[in-house]
Amino acid sequence: MLKLYYAPGTCALASHIALQEAGAAYTTERVDFKTNQQNSPEYLAINPKGRVPALVTDRGILTETPAMLAFIAQSFPQAKLAPLDDPFEFAQLQAFNSYLCSTVHVAHAHRPRGYRWATEEASFADMKRKVPETMGAGFALIERDLRGPWVMGAAYTICDPYLFTLAQWLEGDGVDLSVLPKVIDHRKRMAQRPAVRQAIADELN
Amino acid sequence: MLKLYYAPGTCALASHIALQEAGAAYTTERVDFKTNQQNSPEYLAINPKGRVPALVTDRGILTETPAMLAFIAQSFPQAKLAPLDDPFEFAQLQAFNSYLCSTVHVAHAHRPRGYRWATEEASFADMKRKVPETMGAGFALIERDLRGPWVMGAAYTICDPYLFTLAQWLEGDGVDLSVLPKVIDHRKRMAQRPAVRQAIADELN
Repeated sequence: MLKLYYAPGTCALASHIALQEAGAAYTTERVDFKTNQQNSPEYLAINPKGRVPALVTDRGILTETPAMLAFIAQSFPQAKLAPLDDPFEFAQLQAFNSYLCSTVHVAHAHRPRGYRWATEEASFADMKRKVPETMGAGFALIERDLRGPWVMGAAYTICDPYLFTLAQWLEGDGVDLSVLPKVIDHRKRMAQRPAVRQAIADELN
Repeated sequence: MLKLYYAPGTCALASHIALQEAGAAYTTERVDFKTNQQNSPEYLAINPKGRVPALVTDRGILTETPAMLAFIAQSFPQAKLAPLDDPFEFAQLQAFNSYLCSTVHVAHAHRPRGYRWATEEASFADMKRKVPETMGAGFALIERDLRGPWVMGAAYTICDPYLFTLAQWLEGDGVDLSVLPKVIDHRKRMAQRPAVRQAIADELN
């Protein structure tokens, strides 16, 4: 049985949706960021990075969203969540997820979590002012290249819940949505999927 | 024939070493950062992100180091550069590479490239001051978990050239090497491998 550690509003939602889409047997456990539970000794024993998500498997614990998403796709091949038999297509999928992880998510994080990379309040404010530009640039590239109807084209894959998850942050990050019609249409269609509604309902409970 | 776009001193070295270890047929092309060639129209047509590395294949262009490394491992399975038949081990490998990409590389980038996330000179200086701490924390976690002799244990994988590449930045980032004996030993052993020496020699030409 898999167990997903998550917090609402975080990138853990991507793995949560993927588990649901895969038809996996799993449980979830909420990590309370308000009480800094992610840095408690108990949680640091699960994920020494003090972050979510973390996925407990019968072989050990996995972290890092792109790795967890590929693991879910490979562990439930019948769900067809990735082009597992085509290294080039799989690499394109992975490049998309890596871009979300290392560029887009990082751009966003400079609004709520500037303290990770600086010390002064003035720096945090400076970083926050730039987030609409950096998130806007990241999503402009995604908009340009979005194949449709899904990220990888005809096939729904693990890229889709990840994009949907980060697209939740656009309004808060001050990005102009009017130049992202394909991203917003994707977000709307994602929100209608039963697996997405179930994962979100679980996290809000 | 594969073609790798690179610049010396960048994370492109990881893919360069992996291609060499895989016995791949490939050529390389240097992107001149001094003349801002990475943002020229010609290069942006190859990689619209204006970054290296980029890998031209006969099916299209790949970017993002973790995706390229997995592609190299999957395309040259006889080189045994990843545990391709074990989704859990493969996910652990990918989690390591994702951490390097989205946390360690990002921590480093706040020293030379603070302008990506802020605007003011004072913010850049603030960011630079924190890099020894953030890079130190990232490498402390790697040191703690390094299985040895290689990142994944007995088997040399695509994690090793990536770790070696980012470990080149430790001195410049002001990290205390004395607390990283396993990382430094790994770096020394990597530097003796013929594939690593060949890739570095190619990049310096």
